[in-house]
Amino acid sequence: MRYFNVNDINELAHLYKINLINSCTGYKSANLIATKSAKNSTNVAIFSSVIHLGSDPPLLGFILRPTTVPRNTHNNIVETGFYTINHIHQEILEDAHHTSAKYKPEISEFDATKLKTDYKNNFYAPFVKDCPIQIGMKYVEEYNIKSNNTKLVVGEIQELYIEEKLLKEDGFINLSEGNIATINGLNGYAIPILKERFDYQRPTK
Amino acid sequence: MRYFNVNDINELAHLYKINLINSCTGYKSANLIATKSAKNSTNVAIFSSVIHLGSDPPLLGFILRPTTVPRNTHNNIVETGFYTINHIHQEILEDAHHTSAKYKPEISEFDATKLKTDYKNNFYAPFVKDCPIQIGMKYVEEYNIKSNNTKLVVGEIQELYIEEKLLKEDGFINLSEGNIATINGLNGYAIPILKERFDYQRPTK
Repeated sequence: MRYFNVNDINELAHLYKINLINSCTGYKSANLIATKSAKNSTNVAIFSSVIHLGSDPPLLGFILRPTTVPRNTHNNIVETGFYTINHIHQEILEDAHHTSAKYKPEISEFDATKLKTDYKNNFYAPFVKDCPIQIGMKYVEEYNIKSNNTKLVVGEIQELYIEEKLLKEDGFINLSEGNIATINGLNGYAIPILKERFDYQRPTK
Repeated sequence: MRYFNVNDINELAHLYKINLINSCTGYKSANLIATKSAKNSTNVAIFSSVIHLGSDPPLLGFILRPTTVPRNTHNNIVETGFYTINHIHQEILEDAHHTSAKYKPEISEFDATKLKTDYKNNFYAPFVKDCPIQIGMKYVEEYNIKSNNTKLVVGEIQELYIEEKLLKEDGFINLSEGNIATINGLNGYAIPILKERFDYQRPTK
């Protein structure tokens, strides 16, 4: 096996290092976070750090890296209190990845790509049209991570839309039936196919 | 599309709710976190919440849900300062999932499954043998998330082992060449195949 210790890692060239460390946690969620400013400017950006925090209340988190992520998203969330999380699927892979380009704040990624806003049920922030899962989120709190000056943003699900065929009798959402993507590293994409669902496990000893 | 608002979600039956909310963020990383207590008892447990926090320094995080996750893992990490993150791959799916069973603290999941410890380079915590990626972690800090009493545990990579064939010239790790798993919800597993690697994106407007 190839071996790196922490000193080896710290001395790697920048691009090699970010490819390596961004790939080493495993597969990541692939989402578009969309917002609208108080002055009605929209913004949409790709995130691979959305995670489940708890189901009761329904809380999700994501990580903001101040240097690489458009600050618009964070400004709009704090200013308006709302944002949406929308799943990236096969048909929009290229446009979704393109939202990682560093556009000026006055340019909406909805204008720079074929991604379309989808306003519904009076929710303040736009959803992304045709995504198989769309989640309307309310900002709850955030934590500054001292070790590297990133933020964990915590929000509560307000509205949840799921393409009918993905939702199973027991509440399980079959992501692969929506051709939903997963991210490998900074720029690798896969469209997984569900292989197994195991039972709830109990001790055998 | 099927629609749930926050009140609908709060009123769902427990199992339906945890299936739904655990599936709705998208694909998750699939890792085994292994530890050893100060008294040499080992512990290994499945986690789907390991995330990248930053590459410089190389920091990863994971979420501890106090009610569902064996407290052993957290005790051992705080007590000894070290833990390992090991990628779940096709050959160990069942044993890895089985570590979610609620064993008594005195029983090691290494004894209850075919998973084997792998001690190397004098690192305090055991790695899990034959995993295509093995990461030795040092505990750095943690944050209590007030909204639901979970914790974000932050650690720094000390040692990184990668199966040679997965590592590409630019530092990218091709997870699919290691048959590495991803998790859908609480108990769904897929072994994705890499589809695309896109270029770094720049504005077109």
